[in-house]
Amino acid sequence: MQFIIQKDYLVRAVHDVMKAVSSRTTIPILTGIKIVATEDGVTLTGSDSDISIESYIPIEKKEKEIVEIQKTGSVVLQAKYFSEIVKKLPQDTVEIEVENHFMTKIKSGKSVFNLNGLDAEEYPHLPQIEEQSMFKVPTDLLRNMIRQTVFAVSTSETRPILTGVNWKVEDGILFCTATDSHRLAMRKAAIESGSSDLTANVVIPGKSLTELSKILDDSDESVEIVITDYQILFKTKHILFFSRLLEGNYPDTSRLIPSESKTDLQVNTKAFLQAIDRASLLAREGRNNVVKLTAFEGNPLAVSSNSPEIGKVVEEIQYESMQGEELKISFSAKYMMDALKAVEGSEISISFTGAMRPFLIRPINDDSTLQLILPVRTY
Amino acid sequence: MQFIIQKDYLVRAVHDVMKAVSSRTTIPILTGIKIVATEDGVTLTGSDSDISIESYIPIEKKEKEIVEIQKTGSVVLQAKYFSEIVKKLPQDTVEIEVENHFMTKIKSGKSVFNLNGLDAEEYPHLPQIEEQSMFKVPTDLLRNMIRQTVFAVSTSETRPILTGVNWKVEDGILFCTATDSHRLAMRKAAIESGSSDLTANVVIPGKSLTELSKILDDSDESVEIVITDYQILFKTKHILFFSRLLEGNYPDTSRLIPSESKTDLQVNTKAFLQAIDRASLLAREGRNNVVKLTAFEGNPLAVSSNSPEIGKVVEEIQYESMQGEELKISFSAKYMMDALKAVEGSEISISFTGAMRPFLIRPINDDSTLQLILPVRTY
Repeated sequence: MQFIIQKDYLVRAVHDVMKAVSSRTTIPILTGIKIVATEDGVTLTGSDSDISIESYIPIEKKEKEIVEIQKTGSVVLQAKYFSEIVKKLPQDTVEIEVENHFMTKIKSGKSVFNLNGLDAEEYPHLPQIEEQSMFKVPTDLLRNMIRQTVFAVSTSETRPILTGVNWKVEDGILFCTATDSHRLAMRKAAIESGSSDLTANVVIPGKSLTELSKILDDSDESVEIVITDYQILFKTKHILFFSRLLEGNYPDTSRLIPSESKTDLQVNTKAFLQAIDRASLLAREGRNNVVKLTAFEGNPLAVSSNSPEIGKVVEEIQYESMQGEELKISFSAKYMMDALKAVEGSEISISFTGAMRPFLIRPINDDSTLQLILPVRTY
Repeated sequence: MQFIIQKDYLVRAVHDVMKAVSSRTTIPILTGIKIVATEDGVTLTGSDSDISIESYIPIEKKEKEIVEIQKTGSVVLQAKYFSEIVKKLPQDTVEIEVENHFMTKIKSGKSVFNLNGLDAEEYPHLPQIEEQSMFKVPTDLLRNMIRQTVFAVSTSETRPILTGVNWKVEDGILFCTATDSHRLAMRKAAIESGSSDLTANVVIPGKSLTELSKILDDSDESVEIVITDYQILFKTKHILFFSRLLEGNYPDTSRLIPSESKTDLQVNTKAFLQAIDRASLLAREGRNNVVKLTAFEGNPLAVSSNSPEIGKVVEEIQYESMQGEELKISFSAKYMMDALKAVEGSEISISFTGAMRPFLIRPINDDSTLQLILPVRTY
């Protein structure tokens, strides 16, 4: 294998596939990056066996030469060293050449590295995925759908299925749902699909979605998504992102969501978020980050917290509208802030069904996003 | 105590004094910030008993009112909470009022905090310093002198005196020297002093200088420096920064510095630094970060490293000039990079006295800075 490549393209591709490489793997060769040079371009692969990322660099782009292939071939190089080296090379172009025993020369200007490589044949094969049931989601929408749900997955392994986000496709709509059993985040959107009768119901590890969202760029193009029994594949122009799926049945969350409400508030999202943030300053220690909300007719909303050792805080917030019963309720400030950050829109509605029942946070006039939080019993 | 203050001034002052507050103190009241309001303004104090910082906010500045004092007095508030609270308050002004039992109300817009305070009389007094032997150093020069030496202090407590920087004043010159016994950094500069026969020889904890340099702003004004037997005081317009001094005699470092040389190199600082940085990529593990430099007549300089398990690297650097004996020498890449970053100037000279003797790095035509490194015996 021998080729000359534009450094910035190489750096970007290495950066992307590094997202899948873990130094704590039980399969030693997975600490490496696989490099394959064909007549058409160079493909890099990184994997921790849960996530695999393939990044493709074509020999030219917009009639500008990016790679000059001198000899096709392949090698696996230690990811840790290779990624540091390419970032720091002195010139705009890099020459990579595999010599005897997979010893690989990396040359740029007056800088010459020789890295011990491994046989690429030893590298595990990526899953073969048949593209029978494919759908598309615009990149920015996909990133939003991930951002608005993934924070709510469980971080505990007590119920492993809850560490993933449930993706359900039904009637041309993709529903993303995450819950750690104390709160729930849901986002839905229409998809572009070849076949209108496409259905799917899978659970994607939260970590996979977080990593995916880091490497999706700000392009207008759509991401192609292929779901199989054990794997999900995300395809962009130059990247293939594979993730394994979680096994097991995701709980039916629809029955958690109250269909009626007793108290309805409308508030400014930002003002409410900042007030909760301040009220939580004294609630973090000892109080488990719990704050109290009181909504009494004729008074502004009050968010408060009281830690006898430290002090107390009261935040008043003007509401836009309030309907229904008066209310006193306690909840986790962190869950509330997470939810408020995930909701789009400057105004939100919060619907309560009493101090002991889960409540809903939604943007005004928009049912594509829903955040649910279970209150905390404090008295 | 009761006053109304512009939030940004309060935030800045709290940020400055927080540099001295440690949560791991054996004196509980030192986890707090002392606030004193007089007719002239508000003074905040933070201390971990090694470092004490006092920040003063005058009632007006450039005819703009900053503080409105309603009642003089004092209190000590938990630094951790107070600093978080002031940063997040909603309005541009903050009202602070001490009520019964040092309970302190902090009010801004519709946000009201009540923090448990402590009696400021219980707070340790800052050292009384007589300003008999004072000198001045311009702020930017002082920051440079700290930056160019403090990195070389020892991080080990084996010889506690080496964890400080030696400051010596002689004949109107301030000499700053730091060494961890493997390398040495020296910077000197003329000072402005009232008395020309001022002398001093003290050792300032490296940590104190690092914290000081963080709170010095980019003003053109000079910092006033007062040295006593046990304390050093740095005074700027609004800040007093006290540090204790290290006890003991600093070793005589002048005899370490070779007065003659056998090989003299002149190289471009940046190109040399980048080459060392790359060469060290493969030297970090197992090789203790040691790289080898070879200077052979008629050839470019070569910096290399070889780790059998990982690979090897050779970096060639064009020198500006080379005089004297040919040389092969090994040294710590980290020490070399630290030294190169501390030296000002685009060209440096390196003077060697053989492969086993300390060598010197200096900017061309400038003897105010000197970096010394002990080589590593590798063969």
